[in-house]
Amino acid sequence: MKNYNLVKTVLIFLIFTQSIYFAQTFNSHTKSDYLAITGKFISKSLTGLTGYKMLKELTKKIGPRLSGSPSASRAVKWAKEKLKRIGADSLWYQKMLVPHWVRGDSEKAILVSDKMDLGKQLNIASLGSSIGTDNDGLFEKVLEVHSFDELDSLKDLVDGKIVFFNTPFDQTLVNTFNAYSKAVQYRVYGASRAAKYGAAAVLVRSVTSLYDNVPHVGVMVYKDSVEKIPAAAISLEDADFLSDVLKIDPGAKIYLNLNCANLPEIPSYNVIGEIKGSEKPDEIILIGAHLDSWDKGEGAHDDGAGVVQALEVLYLFKNLGIHPKRTVRCVLYMNEENGSRGAKKYGEYADTSKERHIAAIESDRGGFTPRGFSVKTDSVSLAKMQSWLPVLQKSLIDWIRPGGTGADISKIKNAKALIGFVPDSQRYFELHHSAHDVLEAVNPRELELGTAAIATLTYLLSEEGL
Amino acid sequence: MKNYNLVKTVLIFLIFTQSIYFAQTFNSHTKSDYLAITGKFISKSLTGLTGYKMLKELTKKIGPRLSGSPSASRAVKWAKEKLKRIGADSLWYQKMLVPHWVRGDSEKAILVSDKMDLGKQLNIASLGSSIGTDNDGLFEKVLEVHSFDELDSLKDLVDGKIVFFNTPFDQTLVNTFNAYSKAVQYRVYGASRAAKYGAAAVLVRSVTSLYDNVPHVGVMVYKDSVEKIPAAAISLEDADFLSDVLKIDPGAKIYLNLNCANLPEIPSYNVIGEIKGSEKPDEIILIGAHLDSWDKGEGAHDDGAGVVQALEVLYLFKNLGIHPKRTVRCVLYMNEENGSRGAKKYGEYADTSKERHIAAIESDRGGFTPRGFSVKTDSVSLAKMQSWLPVLQKSLIDWIRPGGTGADISKIKNAKALIGFVPDSQRYFELHHSAHDVLEAVNPRELELGTAAIATLTYLLSEEGL
Repeated sequence: MKNYNLVKTVLIFLIFTQSIYFAQTFNSHTKSDYLAITGKFISKSLTGLTGYKMLKELTKKIGPRLSGSPSASRAVKWAKEKLKRIGADSLWYQKMLVPHWVRGDSEKAILVSDKMDLGKQLNIASLGSSIGTDNDGLFEKVLEVHSFDELDSLKDLVDGKIVFFNTPFDQTLVNTFNAYSKAVQYRVYGASRAAKYGAAAVLVRSVTSLYDNVPHVGVMVYKDSVEKIPAAAISLEDADFLSDVLKIDPGAKIYLNLNCANLPEIPSYNVIGEIKGSEKPDEIILIGAHLDSWDKGEGAHDDGAGVVQALEVLYLFKNLGIHPKRTVRCVLYMNEENGSRGAKKYGEYADTSKERHIAAIESDRGGFTPRGFSVKTDSVSLAKMQSWLPVLQKSLIDWIRPGGTGADISKIKNAKALIGFVPDSQRYFELHHSAHDVLEAVNPRELELGTAAIATLTYLLSEEGL
Repeated sequence: MKNYNLVKTVLIFLIFTQSIYFAQTFNSHTKSDYLAITGKFISKSLTGLTGYKMLKELTKKIGPRLSGSPSASRAVKWAKEKLKRIGADSLWYQKMLVPHWVRGDSEKAILVSDKMDLGKQLNIASLGSSIGTDNDGLFEKVLEVHSFDELDSLKDLVDGKIVFFNTPFDQTLVNTFNAYSKAVQYRVYGASRAAKYGAAAVLVRSVTSLYDNVPHVGVMVYKDSVEKIPAAAISLEDADFLSDVLKIDPGAKIYLNLNCANLPEIPSYNVIGEIKGSEKPDEIILIGAHLDSWDKGEGAHDDGAGVVQALEVLYLFKNLGIHPKRTVRCVLYMNEENGSRGAKKYGEYADTSKERHIAAIESDRGGFTPRGFSVKTDSVSLAKMQSWLPVLQKSLIDWIRPGGTGADISKIKNAKALIGFVPDSQRYFELHHSAHDVLEAVNPRELELGTAAIATLTYLLSEEGL
């Protein structure tokens, strides 16, 4: 009987502690209060479309915003003006130097095969940071490879040639970011790997899930010890065409003329605005996105969507009269695409600041329908955030999992939690870094639900802490 | 010490039983086997795009497929041919009579206001099952209402007028199907409700989340005891225009001329193909979708997507050499849109058949990225299916919840589980029943991941049973 009682006690204890656990999921407000606020975020964002309207301005009035360009400067002023109108409690710039790469007005690749009586212009686009060719361009044979291993095995054939990295995007991967990660190494490191063996230039198959004739650009990086050679992306259709021609005529040559260039670095800015926390103003919940974008397209999904979501979260708090306990800070980074200078600048600030970064949320995976948050934190904080899912699910957040977060926030060393907003990934790499990344590719409801999801998590973090 | 041991025993028992529970989640194969098969479904569908290619044929070669139309007949033949080429073990038709409504060649609404010197053609489209006007059309004043309550309160003003139901789509609802359900009653029942008070015709604000000038059609239903009057949908832009004009000139009139008509019913068919179960052939896992579609657009998402997903599941099983223990049956229903005659026909068959319908899965919410399955079943079967989520999540299924399933499968009374495939809903009602519902609005990866998700659940059901 005594034993029986003990068993009962243990079971009751287990049930009781579990009850406490569930009861204590929310400390500052009740679950129904949180659900009510979430409902307001959703209604206001879906009916007001404030973020979508800001995105229209950013994409159509300002356009693409590559670091160092006049439109990037205009975007900085635009963002400051927005934060002012939203009524941010404070508002400041962080100044730093950024790379100033310009595409120039020539990016020509003409495929010539005497065997096939062919002279065809290929759809290419210089890669960011690439040097140009000489004014006369170059006219060389092409060596097609599909991996760095293959390049290494063919190293004796490389000298003086244009190396053509033709590695397809792996369509079998459900998360398209994984396919991107696999393929993007050829875009980033291909030039220096090929230059080591004496290549004259590289062409890289565009890293995209969409089969068409549009090149997708992005940054490339030179290795210091290796000669710099020109690098460009080629569209998928023309990559396949080139590959077919090379099968018939391995001696086919490409005339390549690029006049992109790296100009001296110039000053630019992170733009920061915040709502001061009412109880713990030195504890920060950061929402980050990047103002700069590639010059093809309008930078609508990458990362105009993230920018207007970060702005709109502040707008929603102000408009709905919500006073967060902790400070909610919107950081619009400069130069994510080709240098991460803004991320480094803010990271240095965070290192030395007396503030405590509770959490930093980054939105840089497009303005698609919300799915989850990918988090880097300790297991207790992760479990705490996961216990909020009954609230977050209202804004289409189905999960919170450990995983990658974001390039800009990753430079904040002392944050308790780094959090990546994860929308659906199926359409992102169709438009990423290309002329397809325009406002028309953004669905207003999907974008705004992302805002609502981020606002909800921000509010939970500001009230519950970590 | 003894007590301590007992506590230990209880805890070990709890852990042990939980282990058994988890170990017993899968009986027929291991979890890793299921994950491997799921991986094959995903790879094959995302790289082969067999469903998307079939959808291209169905939308571009056959086009819209309203019940009774020549193209609906062609779709029946096309579906049978597909099932034959896929290698279905058996293949048959179910014959029944279907309504034969035709749009005709006139659907004209001209808004006339003497006060404003206005004669403007409004973008309208006759609603399915509606009668036409007389040849001369009608020319009447307009009464705008926003609810049936308002209609009732204004009943003395209705006689002889065109009643204009102008109820907006509720954009604050995250699940757009809930907004559709709220608004669609005016399209379906508006005519008879207004005719009761003597209305001459009705115009109904299109039930859509997209603000533009395209009308969205759909079925309407006459109440037997009430006079039939013509009914048409009006685009959102023209609904707002009409409302604005009525504010300035309540005496404005519309000239309405529709020559749609209900012709005598004619025979049509459900098309059914299956893979016989190797161990329990009389236990059926049904995958259903509807072949017919509205005549605006191409019926790409509604429900071409579901049709090709159902076909592709059979294709995947055959192509990958998977022999299900239970019978996997693809039922392509006729006449979901305006009569559900196919659903009734199959339901009658299921009632009298000696087969046991373990589960019926319907895909009729568009070919968007997968999110979950909405299930009607007992709690034990629900829990069993939910225990499969670690496998299903691989194909982007984040949840299995009780809820609505599908119009066609709902007529199967004796099924153990009715299951609706739930893709993301944000874009569906932008194109639903309109000229926007074309192949170009379907994303190949999103469509194919839907197939992979349905194939995975089908395989689990076929092996594990319910």
